Amino acid sequence: MALIVQKYGGTSMGSVERIEHVASKVASWRAKGHRVVVVVSAMSGETDRLLKLAKSIDPRGSEREFDQIASTGEQVTIGLLALALNKVGVPSKSYTGWQVALRTDSAHMKARIQAIDSERLLADLDAGIVPVVAGFQGIDDTGAITTLGRGGSDTTGVALAAALKADECQIYTDVDGVYTTDPRVEPKARRLDRITFEEMLEMASLGSKVLQIRSVEFAGKYKVPLRVVSTFVDGPGTLITLDEDSLGGNVEDALISGIAFNRDEAQLTIAGVPDRPGIAAAILGPVGDANIEVDMIVQNVGADASTDFTFTVHKNDYDRASDVVKALAVELGAKGVRTATDIVKVSLVGVGMRSHAGIASKMFKALAAEGINIRMISTSEIKISVVIEDKYLELAVRTLHRAFELDQAKS
Amino acid sequence: MALIVQKYGGTSMGSVERIEHVASKVASWRAKGHRVVVVVSAMSGETDRLLKLAKSIDPRGSEREFDQIASTGEQVTIGLLALALNKVGVPSKSYTGWQVALRTDSAHMKARIQAIDSERLLADLDAGIVPVVAGFQGIDDTGAITTLGRGGSDTTGVALAAALKADECQIYTDVDGVYTTDPRVEPKARRLDRITFEEMLEMASLGSKVLQIRSVEFAGKYKVPLRVVSTFVDGPGTLITLDEDSLGGNVEDALISGIAFNRDEAQLTIAGVPDRPGIAAAILGPVGDANIEVDMIVQNVGADASTDFTFTVHKNDYDRASDVVKALAVELGAKGVRTATDIVKVSLVGVGMRSHAGIASKMFKALAAEGINIRMISTSEIKISVVIEDKYLELAVRTLHRAFELDQAKS
Repeated sequence: MALIVQKYGGTSMGSVERIEHVASKVASWRAKGHRVVVVVSAMSGETDRLLKLAKSIDPRGSEREFDQIASTGEQVTIGLLALALNKVGVPSKSYTGWQVALRTDSAHMKARIQAIDSERLLADLDAGIVPVVAGFQGIDDTGAITTLGRGGSDTTGVALAAALKADECQIYTDVDGVYTTDPRVEPKARRLDRITFEEMLEMASLGSKVLQIRSVEFAGKYKVPLRVVSTFVDGPGTLITLDEDSLGGNVEDALISGIAFNRDEAQLTIAGVPDRPGIAAAILGPVGDANIEVDMIVQNVGADASTDFTFTVHKNDYDRASDVVKALAVELGAKGVRTATDIVKVSLVGVGMRSHAGIASKMFKALAAEGINIRMISTSEIKISVVIEDKYLELAVRTLHRAFELDQAKS
Repeated sequence: MALIVQKYGGTSMGSVERIEHVASKVASWRAKGHRVVVVVSAMSGETDRLLKLAKSIDPRGSEREFDQIASTGEQVTIGLLALALNKVGVPSKSYTGWQVALRTDSAHMKARIQAIDSERLLADLDAGIVPVVAGFQGIDDTGAITTLGRGGSDTTGVALAAALKADECQIYTDVDGVYTTDPRVEPKARRLDRITFEEMLEMASLGSKVLQIRSVEFAGKYKVPLRVVSTFVDGPGTLITLDEDSLGGNVEDALISGIAFNRDEAQLTIAGVPDRPGIAAAILGPVGDANIEVDMIVQNVGADASTDFTFTVHKNDYDRASDVVKALAVELGAKGVRTATDIVKVSLVGVGMRSHAGIASKMFKALAAEGINIRMISTSEIKISVVIEDKYLELAVRTLHRAFELDQAKS
């Protein structure tokens, strides 16, 4: 008898029939004697529809109001799933974010969870009730509804699993696990049985859309075993685990776990800024103050007393970041500003990289052999990322997938 | 400079364009120096759509979940209107029912307001902000979302006006005032400049769909001047007033203010129950316990030691009421149960009735002349109601409108 938090995404909640299918899945886990808490997203497309409606009035309107509107998506699906569970004989009650006191900061549309009151949910579980909790949303100190940003329902699931000390957090989605890369780009992509939190973090943050990055961070931090499973096809999915050894002693073979990519970034360069201490902070300070998240940061040694400073941001933040950077360029006496939105980031990810040299050069060689020019490079212990022109995305992913033999199962 | 609560219904909020029209109306009141609080309904059809979705899973599902789902309708429109107001330069913030601590009892889908915390709204008004509050919804002591039942947004408007001690509560709708009867049934129906709370109460409760009955009760109880106005056509609308004298001294002429009707009732008769003290309570007790509201009640003197007991309920409650009554008939040793759903109630309403005899006989004569059979009669100080077969509705209303000369303006 385990305590399991199950999170079902928008596709799983896409229609009344699918919601009834989810209810039958939850019922079968409960019939095995498990205690289950369910977290759900809005019906697929609904959050987009609501935000489009809101932005049709004012695209730059109050984010407090955007959250007020967008959060209704899950409020509908929690009610529907609770009704469907009751109908198949499983006592259930739905809860919005504020109803379980899921407290966040006040950063509307990208709020961060601060605390969850687990008492109410534990009381329900003790009474044999399956609580159905709205993902993606919370409440701030002023009583305003906040949302956690795209994919936030995963984070809600993991945060609840941590607060309830659940045995496992299962993320149900329309894919049956984590793949070596996106099968829509490389049909030979292969499902991984296990992957470490660190690798998953890099895969998620770099654009593999299976899980939201923050949910993996949370899961790693609170040691919540996380499993990605399909709602529609039975199978073991992919277990995301803390322990590298549990990968089956095949770390030596598995140099690389996967190839992630991200189409949603834009690049901004301030060219010819004075190369002096504090310049990075002088640039990234105002960017951070504008609440813009920066991903890659590259600063190169300059030829004279100046240097080029480049960073990438989400395309959604590009307009605002561009305004900030142009003002900064004048202020700092830079030579100019260069920006690009027709870029894509491709990354190799693998814990095996730690103990093996030569991965980077093998990667760059493979790309060069296909005539793909690299614009930016950034490395960490378990990943190497390159920024290339977006038209080369598919070619680059397939080339690397073959070069690192990712289509061949390791045993 | 007045404090005005304006309530806009579903038709007024029916599209982005209409919401922007509402924003411009609110802005123009504010430009005149008034302080404005706005209450809104869901987009027309949205509450029905949401409830249909919920009931497609389980028509007899948990009303707590129905409310959780249905209450999202206004949560969307408050956000949209706040955005639209901000866009035209009017600072605005949206609030759900629970965000203004609109406390109700726990009778889901027909909850009653118990208290409103006006502090937050008054602070907003002092700061020059126009608060936009969700109608129709509140929160109970367990933290569950409740709804007030159909037309509940009117009640929210009046309750807020009372709590804020507003100078006037304006109900914006798609009609330009209260009419002598429904113009769709009698094209000669005429707009009334003024009507008393009592008359309005009878008009509303008897099916004139302009205002929800509870809102008129509230307005009368807390002496909130209430005005029905059109969102789309400028005009004075109809003022609902406490004072009969303010009707312009024409009470003598205005014997009858209007003709109301209600198609939503069903009739249940327990025939041949023992005619003994306490029998009405023995019947209506279990009906009330089942949370079914009863409208007309008629008990006639029986020929022997038994009597026929008839009452009407909303058609929505008919199935449940029918179950209760059948069980009661067995228990009380009644001769049988008769029910009818093909009925309509037509009522004459007017404060002038108090001082004038002969209204009832004039009414019955007019109906008889058209061959309309009367099934039930019920009277009060300012109204006379008859139940007839539903196919005679239009004929009855037109006949009475003409008989009481309601198409002729009184001055």
